[in-house]
Amino acid sequence: MKKPCLILLIRSAGMNTNWTVVEVLRHARHDWMNKLQLIKGNLALNRPERAQQIIEEIVLEAQQESRLSNLKLTKFATLLLTFNWENHFFSIDYDIIDQSFLNELDDDALYDWFITFFRLLDEAVVPYQDHQLSITIKDSHESAKFFLDFGGILKNDQLVLEWLESQNRIIMEHWDKEQFAFHIHF
Amino acid sequence: MKKPCLILLIRSAGMNTNWTVVEVLRHARHDWMNKLQLIKGNLALNRPERAQQIIEEIVLEAQQESRLSNLKLTKFATLLLTFNWENHFFSIDYDIIDQSFLNELDDDALYDWFITFFRLLDEAVVPYQDHQLSITIKDSHESAKFFLDFGGILKNDQLVLEWLESQNRIIMEHWDKEQFAFHIHF
Repeated sequence: MKKPCLILLIRSAGMNTNWTVVEVLRHARHDWMNKLQLIKGNLALNRPERAQQIIEEIVLEAQQESRLSNLKLTKFATLLLTFNWENHFFSIDYDIIDQSFLNELDDDALYDWFITFFRLLDEAVVPYQDHQLSITIKDSHESAKFFLDFGGILKNDQLVLEWLESQNRIIMEHWDKEQFAFHIHF
Repeated sequence: MKKPCLILLIRSAGMNTNWTVVEVLRHARHDWMNKLQLIKGNLALNRPERAQQIIEEIVLEAQQESRLSNLKLTKFATLLLTFNWENHFFSIDYDIIDQSFLNELDDDALYDWFITFFRLLDEAVVPYQDHQLSITIKDSHESAKFFLDFGGILKNDQLVLEWLESQNRIIMEHWDKEQFAFHIHF
């Protein structure tokens, strides 16, 4: 029973693979305007130091985005770059700490694994709550290690746990309904 | 002799019509980081008022971009939004003052006219100088009026002048080798 059910669930959440330039820029502009609003608000409140801090944070975030974009992993990078613009029940953030082994990865395999996991998680979380998935990417013993840390509430934790247990190369660090973390090597 | 030569020239300047999400975001990020750098620089020099002014200018620019993106003129909007990211011998800027008649325009016709003119201008200007083409769009008597104002140096002004004279719906406002301006109705 589990398998067909899982396939059905995974198919049900669509992801946009045909972004137009106008759409991409609309989303990017919206994000940047929100950041600018933060700087503007702090300047209006006569807090230039806080505004400067915010600028530093934005620069660091842009550097992460730039690192991700410079990898030769176009499908995977596009998935992460656009994920928060789509209708999902959780948000993602990412940190790329090392990147030497990342260019040797298989873009399609990486994309397939992540999109499947994202779709599964979309089905498994309690909708319309604040859920966050943090992805940290670093090198480890001549392979790339992805550390995934979820904070939120799962309504269907068994679905996620069983799927993760069926996957190779996973080391579970912590597991409960509101927080789980694991490593996966590629 | 003129016609085949013109066609050859127009064909020689390529424009990217297949932007990837990663490429679009790389360029947009680069532009935003430059703007942020201006804010940061002024804050570092203890000029919060100037930083606030710059933010206001960025907001106005983003509003123009947003107006352009909201028109149902995807090809034309994409051409203007991405033009300065490509290798051209002049830069463009645009102002959309009214937009009621713009949605009724033929996107393909508009795109074709502008891309032809842009290619022609790329061939006609002195390379590696600072040339600017400003495009102002507004309504006028139940049609859309485009005002194009060029500042720079033409090495081949006859090419441009002859082509413009061959076009319908153009009213020349000013013409010389370093500055010309005209209206075109669509």
